[in-house]
Parts: sequence; structure tokens; C-alpha cells
Amino acid sequence: MRFDVLVEVRLRQGIADPEGATIERALPALGFTGIGQVRVGKAIRMVVEAARIQDAEQVASQVALRLLSNPVIEDVEVTVLGSAPAAGGQAAAGGGAIGQ
Amino acid sequence: MRFDVLVEVRLRQGIADPEGATIERALPALGFTGIGQVRVGKAIRMVVEAARIQDAEQVASQVALRLLSNPVIEDVEVTVLGSAPAAGGQAAAGGGAIGQ
Repeated sequence: MRFDVLVEVRLRQGIADPEGATIERALPALGFTGIGQVRVGKAIRMVVEAARIQDAEQVASQVALRLLSNPVIEDVEVTVLGSAPAAGGQAAAGGGAIGQ
Repeated sequence: MRFDVLVEVRLRQGIADPEGATIERALPALGFTGIGQVRVGKAIRMVVEAARIQDAEQVASQVALRLLSNPVIEDVEVTVLGSAPAAGGQAAAGGGAIGQ
């Protein structure tokens, strides 16, 4: 089976995030107030071929830790979003997609 | 109330993603097979102050479309993960956090 997997790589708490800080400073000038703690990380999507959902999550976790992140300064979070259609479309995931 | 929000910004289908292609090519050399369609995007986390969860999602969507993405080549997906504790910790979210 094929599983859609989302790997989120984000800076650990306490690691400075200049990009997030810059976004946060820009928001009031655009009229957005009440937004804080902006942190910018990476979102890597992939399709994993595995027999079971647990196997897909394990493989994606290993990839995330070995190739996609720097464990000294970054945390990773792996989410299996569901099984992917064979043609490689996107499975339904949580949240509302905008501007499709 | 304060809401933890995740904004995922990803390249639209059909837009070339050299970073994702490079990761995909590197995987077999590390012993990972059966992984495809690797796409690299951004994951922006923020805490939004709003009265209702719908308001938080709307504000975050506007920020995502106006400041965080280029709508010509990118899609955004906004997910409200839950209400954030006042001290600014992280609310429980789906998926397993690794390497905390």
C-alpha cells in the first residue's frame, strides 16, 4: 500500500528563528494583530510504499531523522495522512486547503 | 482564547521542486526504497488570539495568503491544532513527535 506522509521539521524551543521573528514584526503593519510565536519550519510530503501504516510511519521517521533534519537543533513530527491512490493523487487530509 | 495554528505552504502540482527531487534521489543510497513524490514546503506555526476557532482559522488563512505564500505557485493549508496554553506551550497535535 502507498501512504501519504507529512514530515514537519521545526526548530527546537529556544533556538532562534529570525525568519519567524521577521514575519511576526511585519504582521501589525498589514493589519494583523494578536498573532505571536511565529516559527518557520519545513513541511516535507512523500508517498511511502509499505505493507502497514506502522511500517510507513517507521520508515518516514528514519528518513526524517537521518536525512531531513538536524537533530541538534530540530525536532521532527511524522504524520501518516492516509493511504494514497495508486495514481499518486493526494489523500484527504485534515485542515482546509485554500486556493486550489 | 489562544489557538495553535499550523500553516503548510507547498508548491502547486506541476511546479518543479528540485529540493524534493534531490532528496528522492538520495534515499536509495541510504537504504530507503519505496519512497516517492517527495515535495518540500514550509510549515509555519503561530499562536493566534481569537474569540472562536473559526476566527483563528480565518485570520491565519488571510496571513497565509497575503504574507506567507505566493499564490501563483503555492497552495496553503491552514490547520488549527487546538487551543494553546496561556504560557505559550504546545497543544497536543496529531502525529508522533520524535526526538523531543
